[in-house]
Amino acid sequence: MTGTRTETDSFGPIEVADNAYWGAQTQRSIENFPIGGERMPVPLIRALGVVKQAAARVNARSGALGADIAPTIEQAAGEVAAGAHDDQFPLVVWQTGSGTQTNMNANEVIAGRANELLAGTRGGKTPVHPNDHVNMAQSSNDTFPTAMHVAAAREVADRLIPALRHLHAALDAKAKAWADLIKIGRTHMQDATPMTLGQELSGYAWQVSDGIARVEAVLPRLHRLAQGGTAVGTGINAPAGFGKDIAAEIATTTGLPFETAPNKFEALASHDTMVELSGALNVLAVSLNKIANDLRLLGSGPRAGIGELALPENEPGSSIMPGKVNPTQCEALTMVAAQVMGNHVAVTVGGAQGHLELNVFKPVIAYNVLQSIRLLADAAVSFADRAVAGMEPNRDRLTELVERSLMLVTALAPEIGYDAASKIARHAHAKGLSLLEAGLELGLVDEETFRRVVRPEQMLGEA
Amino acid sequence: MTGTRTETDSFGPIEVADNAYWGAQTQRSIENFPIGGERMPVPLIRALGVVKQAAARVNARSGALGADIAPTIEQAAGEVAAGAHDDQFPLVVWQTGSGTQTNMNANEVIAGRANELLAGTRGGKTPVHPNDHVNMAQSSNDTFPTAMHVAAAREVADRLIPALRHLHAALDAKAKAWADLIKIGRTHMQDATPMTLGQELSGYAWQVSDGIARVEAVLPRLHRLAQGGTAVGTGINAPAGFGKDIAAEIATTTGLPFETAPNKFEALASHDTMVELSGALNVLAVSLNKIANDLRLLGSGPRAGIGELALPENEPGSSIMPGKVNPTQCEALTMVAAQVMGNHVAVTVGGAQGHLELNVFKPVIAYNVLQSIRLLADAAVSFADRAVAGMEPNRDRLTELVERSLMLVTALAPEIGYDAASKIARHAHAKGLSLLEAGLELGLVDEETFRRVVRPEQMLGEA
Amino acid sequence: MTGTRTETDSFGPIEVADNAYWGAQTQRSIENFPIGGERMPVPLIRALGVVKQAAARVNARSGALGADIAPTIEQAAGEVAAGAHDDQFPLVVWQTGSGTQTNMNANEVIAGRANELLAGTRGGKTPVHPNDHVNMAQSSNDTFPTAMHVAAAREVADRLIPALRHLHAALDAKAKAWADLIKIGRTHMQDATPMTLGQELSGYAWQVSDGIARVEAVLPRLHRLAQGGTAVGTGINAPAGFGKDIAAEIATTTGLPFETAPNKFEALASHDTMVELSGALNVLAVSLNKIANDLRLLGSGPRAGIGELALPENEPGSSIMPGKVNPTQCEALTMVAAQVMGNHVAVTVGGAQGHLELNVFKPVIAYNVLQSIRLLADAAVSFADRAVAGMEPNRDRLTELVERSLMLVTALAPEIGYDAASKIARHAHAKGLSLLEAGLELGLVDEETFRRVVRPEQMLGEA
Amino acid sequence: MTGTRTETDSFGPIEVADNAYWGAQTQRSIENFPIGGERMPVPLIRALGVVKQAAARVNARSGALGADIAPTIEQAAGEVAAGAHDDQFPLVVWQTGSGTQTNMNANEVIAGRANELLAGTRGGKTPVHPNDHVNMAQSSNDTFPTAMHVAAAREVADRLIPALRHLHAALDAKAKAWADLIKIGRTHMQDATPMTLGQELSGYAWQVSDGIARVEAVLPRLHRLAQGGTAVGTGINAPAGFGKDIAAEIATTTGLPFETAPNKFEALASHDTMVELSGALNVLAVSLNKIANDLRLLGSGPRAGIGELALPENEPGSSIMPGKVNPTQCEALTMVAAQVMGNHVAVTVGGAQGHLELNVFKPVIAYNVLQSIRLLADAAVSFADRAVAGMEPNRDRLTELVERSLMLVTALAPEIGYDAASKIARHAHAKGLSLLEAGLELGLVDEETFRRVVRPEQMLGEA
Repeated sequence: MTGTRTETDSFGPIEVADNAYWGAQTQRSIENFPIGGERMPVPLIRALGVVKQAAARVNARSGALGADIAPTIEQAAGEVAAGAHDDQFPLVVWQTGSGTQTNMNANEVIAGRANELLAGTRGGKTPVHPNDHVNMAQSSNDTFPTAMHVAAAREVADRLIPALRHLHAALDAKAKAWADLIKIGRTHMQDATPMTLGQELSGYAWQVSDGIARVEAVLPRLHRLAQGGTAVGTGINAPAGFGKDIAAEIATTTGLPFETAPNKFEALASHDTMVELSGALNVLAVSLNKIANDLRLLGSGPRAGIGELALPENEPGSSIMPGKVNPTQCEALTMVAAQVMGNHVAVTVGGAQGHLELNVFKPVIAYNVLQSIRLLADAAVSFADRAVAGMEPNRDRLTELVERSLMLVTALAPEIGYDAASKIARHAHAKGLSLLEAGLELGLVDEETFRRVVRPEQMLGEA
Repeated sequence: MTGTRTETDSFGPIEVADNAYWGAQTQRSIENFPIGGERMPVPLIRALGVVKQAAARVNARSGALGADIAPTIEQAAGEVAAGAHDDQFPLVVWQTGSGTQTNMNANEVIAGRANELLAGTRGGKTPVHPNDHVNMAQSSNDTFPTAMHVAAAREVADRLIPALRHLHAALDAKAKAWADLIKIGRTHMQDATPMTLGQELSGYAWQVSDGIARVEAVLPRLHRLAQGGTAVGTGINAPAGFGKDIAAEIATTTGLPFETAPNKFEALASHDTMVELSGALNVLAVSLNKIANDLRLLGSGPRAGIGELALPENEPGSSIMPGKVNPTQCEALTMVAAQVMGNHVAVTVGGAQGHLELNVFKPVIAYNVLQSIRLLADAAVSFADRAVAGMEPNRDRLTELVERSLMLVTALAPEIGYDAASKIARHAHAKGLSLLEAGLELGLVDEETFRRVVRPEQMLGEA
Repeated sequence: MTGTRTETDSFGPIEVADNAYWGAQTQRSIENFPIGGERMPVPLIRALGVVKQAAARVNARSGALGADIAPTIEQAAGEVAAGAHDDQFPLVVWQTGSGTQTNMNANEVIAGRANELLAGTRGGKTPVHPNDHVNMAQSSNDTFPTAMHVAAAREVADRLIPALRHLHAALDAKAKAWADLIKIGRTHMQDATPMTLGQELSGYAWQVSDGIARVEAVLPRLHRLAQGGTAVGTGINAPAGFGKDIAAEIATTTGLPFETAPNKFEALASHDTMVELSGALNVLAVSLNKIANDLRLLGSGPRAGIGELALPENEPGSSIMPGKVNPTQCEALTMVAAQVMGNHVAVTVGGAQGHLELNVFKPVIAYNVLQSIRLLADAAVSFADRAVAGMEPNRDRLTELVERSLMLVTALAPEIGYDAASKIARHAHAKGLSLLEAGLELGLVDEETFRRVVRPEQMLGEA
Repeated sequence: MTGTRTETDSFGPIEVADNAYWGAQTQRSIENFPIGGERMPVPLIRALGVVKQAAARVNARSGALGADIAPTIEQAAGEVAAGAHDDQFPLVVWQTGSGTQTNMNANEVIAGRANELLAGTRGGKTPVHPNDHVNMAQSSNDTFPTAMHVAAAREVADRLIPALRHLHAALDAKAKAWADLIKIGRTHMQDATPMTLGQELSGYAWQVSDGIARVEAVLPRLHRLAQGGTAVGTGINAPAGFGKDIAAEIATTTGLPFETAPNKFEALASHDTMVELSGALNVLAVSLNKIANDLRLLGSGPRAGIGELALPENEPGSSIMPGKVNPTQCEALTMVAAQVMGNHVAVTVGGAQGHLELNVFKPVIAYNVLQSIRLLADAAVSFADRAVAGMEPNRDRLTELVERSLMLVTALAPEIGYDAASKIARHAHAKGLSLLEAGLELGLVDEETFRRVVRPEQMLGEA
């Protein structure tokens, strides 16, 4: 920071760094909220750029915004949308609950940049005024939730869905490649009946594809935009049709099917759809936690664990135990899962506490939902590439364990009855015998029947 | 309890009360899990009856179950489905995580009742055996999750959706009845621009109708049944096609579009869809918490609060303050909301911790989801009938507050600019003036312009 | 129900069953809150009896309550405290958020019983009036939170702490008994350096004893009682000193060190201490989840898992797999843990939403905290008795696994450096060699050094 | 980045930027975990510096670390502790669950800096080796949890407790200043009996002071350090007494009463104490949410709300409504509260899922606990300074509302009975009368009695 210039708002003058595009209200917020350091998420900032650009276009088209300034506002907003001014958004999440100050930050940066382009001086309110021109026909109360939906929908479309498809493909490939590898199934962590490794993997793949469907089920509601409701939902100071027009404009810009929210009172006062989206992310966290936990368990060892899988070795695992390799991608993913479950509660608590015409937990809701999307997407890709893709079955171990299992006795039950089969299994366990030995010793089955019925390869089902 | 009889399982003999239909495994579970007192939910018990009845029919049709016993098993299972034996399910939620003991409880009660019908003696294993006949082609591992889905889907269809529609209708009726009552809007709990009371109510109605849509979005996955996967998902000991056939049978019985789960490994090892459903219930809790909070706030007073609404007086409100009336239905509903949010975390934690081929948090998941459905449904109906239907607007108060408001100045901003309008509002606030007085005193607006522009009835939007 | 009698309150007359002790307000609440079926917890009802009895004593002592009725009120309240009238409390949790109706239920049952004793007619308001006499100097707003603290403190003292001590003793006994059994340690689910089975168990025992300390740390605040604050905290209509006197009386009755809350406004308007207690229960859930998970993992198998421990076989494990035995006590306990974590969120959400002079989430907070205490206590005892006490080590398996481990190489690092030791372990793993073979093959260690240094029994630390 | 140099670990060579101090393992982690962007929290990094410095001192004292390198390691570690190398810790939270890579990051930066000081070349392993020297007698498994406790304890001592004391002082000052301002109390959001504004504030102050006590109650356990347990808790490769010595050293450096954990197995495998601390933070979130909500409610208006308080005007409140001022500090604080409640669930989920000798959710636990502390502390100070300190009572409004209230009738109940008092209040409400008018009209009280008894200034209690 070299020098400063004076900016003003209704509270009076305030000094702003020369090189900043922002104005008085942004500066005041920096000083009023010295809390933590978490800045408003970048996808939200860029979404505000998208919204402001679309507003300028709609307002220019209606003639409300003069042709002398409209194209420049549109250009400046476009720069924000493209990420050229990310560093001009210094405000933290912990501010006004409507995100008003970040909306003003966007208004001021766009005005400040437009004024630079038009008049050669950065900042200020002429010829472009942050409220009267950039914020024309808008309120923070409709603009910020619009940006929340735009940001979340784009992150879902551009980041989360592709990542989940990538993970699904990796799991599905293994499910297919290992379709014939017979292994022991385990329920309650105890030996159960046989299955294939491919079948086991297919369950994980299915969880991920259902997870995609769950997120997609939220999209019809996520694509509804609050814009046009202005201050309380009535649309005061916005012309008729503004909401519909700007939604169409944003849909064109982003290529996503946004539309105007059918009830603007709900759209400002609640964020139920963000809570719903967070709920879908929560299910993904649950699914991925289960998958990562299982792979870590199947890969436990190398010599004193289950050891059916060898996970890729990506880095040294221990600062004290030489040569140790750990399932680190599983750990990163399960930590992400824990975070997403926690974020979901923060979103729920924030979503539940709106009052009357406005929910004032908007920034904390946006922050958590966008963090959850980002973490799930990144971790899914990393897990697919650095854990799933390179893992290998230990074929000898798979065979050894299935052959030992006592639960092959299940196939005998329809022949000799549950109670007799039970006795064989318990006798084998108690005496350390094979099932056949136990069955013969107890006289509950003959060898021919046993060999005909107890065949793991016939216990794998239709699939 | 009069006398006892001796029942046996693979662990040996055990005494059971004469008048009980259950057998050894149920009895053992009573003794092994003296934890809390929360019994397995009744809708789940009855769903088990539905499943067992359907299984008997499918097994009879294939000839696996003899015609001598099949109809009686079907009849006994039907009695369980109809609720005739609810008292025969004494087991608590806190048991085996697969619900095995409750599945055995169902097997034993149905066998015990069938044996009574066929042989005149209650209980036992002949001619009908709990495992070999009642549980034929099934495992707890697929039966219990099937019953979870059947129970949840029926409770949603029979209880929750009708209740939400009822609440929606009550809110919507008020929204329409009060469409012309102008009031002050409030954002950040501070006075904002005007709206109608009907518009405010319409937002709540919209939240509820979206909530219905959210629950319905889960149904395609909730209607998938695990049955046919048996022990680990492979379908060992179940004939080919069993899963498909029993799903069709259950669909017929219940009138709901159940189908066999496309991946049985996922259906046993995870309960992602129950977590998803719980997430939809969580959004409902968030919505209803907001609505109840708002009505309590609008009804605050009667003399020292906002007082725009009079909620119905249902009972004396205080043991010490004579004549006090409180918004008790709002309080019951927000307590239900808190419970549902908590239940959602229990479901999430349980759902995230499955291991390999089986999630063993089935009973706790079922218990919480079913409690959430029941509480939301009951509380929604009670709230609709005892709070929403009878509440009345205080018209004088609505008018008084809107006329006083400083935020009518918003309509001036497009005429005289945001900064000038700001000065008028702040001056009026500081000096206790009306907006017109302040505007004239500051010379920032003339009376004709003011009277033309500042008209609450023109600030209400298109709707 | 045979006939009815007419009871009245300020809303008018209402019919009540002849055999009920309760009056008009209780009856009205039954009809106004048909939500779920969860009745107010029994420990809370009995605590109300304790409070009412103490109030009668203090009021009698001051002369405010006449000698003609005081002893009878005291007697009737004592019957409630002793559990003789549990069935006279039909109201559900989902009622007024202050618990007013349950306080009135207590007032009415005690008055109704006292009137029966004094006048021969059950119910009514003469000679004993529910408000004027039984509720004398009290409000629901101070009585209900007092009962919450009394109930929770008693459940902690009588149920939870003894249960945790019992579990601690069971774990500690195993830790001592198995102090010399060397096994492989595991970090990240991967083989690590050796330890003893006793050391592993000692960690669990420590978690439980710390858990006791955490609960005890809450007690000084839990022993503070709101009574004396009456309606809003000022103590209106209660005589000076009432709060102090009744706390002393309750302390005498219960044998617990209750005292009057130093700030009654906080005591009515917040339930931070209940949230705090729930937080301590949440840590217990976390601890017990970890312990149960570990024992289930160490007991996995019997042939295709880790198999270091044999957990007791308490019941048949599967309806389809004969002879299967499962870690069912671990499953019950981890389900309880999930419930307690969920309950904690319900308590948190309820605790956070008080308004001004009163938190109106009292019943839901009480319900969840009392359920968590009960479940943790019962499950801890059952787990101690049915899992911990009877589990046995598999000594052969312990030895086999420790001998195979590659991480014994850690002891070499201080001799030959981390990098050389690393090479040996990785070489052994890749080639399937023993560490000694690998070390010699690579020429990085000589046999004498290896045999001197790599000795599991010297890697167990000071303890 | 200009050029690169080659660093190596057991996985082979890897290129590292010339200007970085870190080595191969840090670089590998950057590449292996492209997840989110949340870096390991700075207080944790600096705590690692404290631990490494203390280790160097203890190892130097025992002679294990040569005098040629020990002082330089100590110096380099001291630089990390002082924050001079914060930018040398590029790793994200979403990595190995033991924090191994961040421990190695610290080892490498300290070695790299020491080598620069000793040999003039940045980085590398000579003369100072990251594992053999900087990590001497340590494992990530004990070092990282030690740093977690040190970081959390310092943030509590340096940041949280002072912030809470500051907020307490601000609330307490208002409670004292306004001790005589009579106002109407409100329960259930409905008018209740009178109290003073100072009494109301005293409840908030009490919540904060109890919050301090709750955090302090955790400290005895938070001050226990895992260091000395090394890989699995046995202390392999650490000399006898190392844990005790390093705890003493850290206590000296930090001035906080750290001591060695009495059971190292628990200290590595669980983070119950971090969950406990998070629980205390969760109660603070609950308390502060209530306080901020209340002040927002009392400050609602300015003309259509309760309006008993005027909160300071810190910035323009609306981008569309000129002159609007909002309770923004309340909103920031309640958003922080929602975040802390969510973080608590993330910590709980992570804490519950440790396996055997190691909990591998260490980074996510540390991240959430440290964020919660920071946010609560910062927001408490901002709220104290920008909301509490400057708020002013509206004396006219306080008086107006108390005079109107119907609940002053409460004082009549001991004179004329609850039922008669009830009738007066309900009659006044229905007819819009004053209580006196209603009482006289109904003939239930005479004017002399009324004027003697119904005096708000006598309804304020002993305090």
